[in-house]
Amino acid sequence: MNDTISLLMKHRSIRSYKPDPVTEEQLEAIIAAGQMASSSSNVQAYSVIAVTDPERKSKLSVLAGNQPYIEQCPVFLVWCADMYRLENAVQQHMPDAESYGDAAENFIVATVDVTLAAQNATVAAESLGLGVVYIGGIRNHIEEVSEFLNLPDHVYPVYGMCLGYPNQEPGIRPRLPQKAVLHRESYQADTTLEAMKEYDDTMVRYLSERTGGAKTAPWSALMAEKMTAPSRMQLKSFLERKGFNKR
Amino acid sequence: MNDTISLLMKHRSIRSYKPDPVTEEQLEAIIAAGQMASSSSNVQAYSVIAVTDPERKSKLSVLAGNQPYIEQCPVFLVWCADMYRLENAVQQHMPDAESYGDAAENFIVATVDVTLAAQNATVAAESLGLGVVYIGGIRNHIEEVSEFLNLPDHVYPVYGMCLGYPNQEPGIRPRLPQKAVLHRESYQADTTLEAMKEYDDTMVRYLSERTGGAKTAPWSALMAEKMTAPSRMQLKSFLERKGFNKR
Repeated sequence: MNDTISLLMKHRSIRSYKPDPVTEEQLEAIIAAGQMASSSSNVQAYSVIAVTDPERKSKLSVLAGNQPYIEQCPVFLVWCADMYRLENAVQQHMPDAESYGDAAENFIVATVDVTLAAQNATVAAESLGLGVVYIGGIRNHIEEVSEFLNLPDHVYPVYGMCLGYPNQEPGIRPRLPQKAVLHRESYQADTTLEAMKEYDDTMVRYLSERTGGAKTAPWSALMAEKMTAPSRMQLKSFLERKGFNKR
Repeated sequence: MNDTISLLMKHRSIRSYKPDPVTEEQLEAIIAAGQMASSSSNVQAYSVIAVTDPERKSKLSVLAGNQPYIEQCPVFLVWCADMYRLENAVQQHMPDAESYGDAAENFIVATVDVTLAAQNATVAAESLGLGVVYIGGIRNHIEEVSEFLNLPDHVYPVYGMCLGYPNQEPGIRPRLPQKAVLHRESYQADTTLEAMKEYDDTMVRYLSERTGGAKTAPWSALMAEKMTAPSRMQLKSFLERKGFNKR
């Protein structure tokens, strides 16, 4: 419909990067675009750490589950939910008052704020011909990653993001049918489950074509496997220790 | 630097809308662009409810703290973190296995997934000349909103979003200096606090100009007030009852 929507519709995650650097000017434009995203009551509860030192990227790659593109990409961004400035504001102006920065509400606010900024940054990066992949793997060893990046209390790393020029041209993965996610007036449980069945067929065909017939499990079977595997069960207590989501 | 970045740099929240409708074609293009955002391991853990019925918008406006633009905008979107399909997948394929859908990890995954989609949708909408504002106020009475929208267990409404043609031309609010949020190699606590002081001055000037000298509190003082007010303290237990963030 227009160039921006065409750009959004072409998104795919990039897991192989050319050695070409991301310029300082590009990085600043990308982060500036990220900062222009909405923020709940202007709290701007996020920070992003740009890691370019090869040894530091290498260390983060290991901590994130040995994902080689973290080493390979010229810039690795770690997007953090950040209540540190806000807690400092309380100490400055109302040192005797109780802060509710540790409430579930502010955990949601900070996690949403950082993600609005990160996705704007993604769109800006792709508009410059760069590619990205979000790295949830930095939550694998979230305590070690936080220490390595010197994150103070009231800050947690939500995901990483590789940034650089794509060295691959991956296909675009089909999404759930729109009727699975777009409901009218109220939640349509039957419709979403029917649409999920259609998507199972779509993904069997898609995976089968991509793997020459080797992988043919329906999406829902892959999701069932994923959901029944314990995942990062240390997160809850880690977040509480960092001052998040305590009440 | 290019049209897409220029568009991102012009973002401002819209709180007054023309009566002109959002067409079905526009809505579908906006949600399609939302769906093209990244999703953690392709779980696509979100749904969005499009509310256009005037009485239903009116009811949601009241529940969200009497924000009149929710009634006024032609389409009100409620963006939900949604583990319902994934829990259904477990029941289908592994009915005897334990699901970890209720873990903090999946609470983060779903909250991030919906926000990546919502921000892509925002960019698509703005590229079509539409405006939006995120509405955190739907968490004011999250239980009533959830019942009103028939949200099943494993689904929670994260925020609303007004969508329509802008009937105002608000200015662009200054953001924190980039050095406050962009750190190099590791977290720079001193730099972020210094930058916060600069921003305090910027915002005093900005608010003073906008209000003819009436409002002049520094940003950090406004943040201290906000953080020390209890906010949506019912959220944590509500989320646990809905099957989120239990362990």
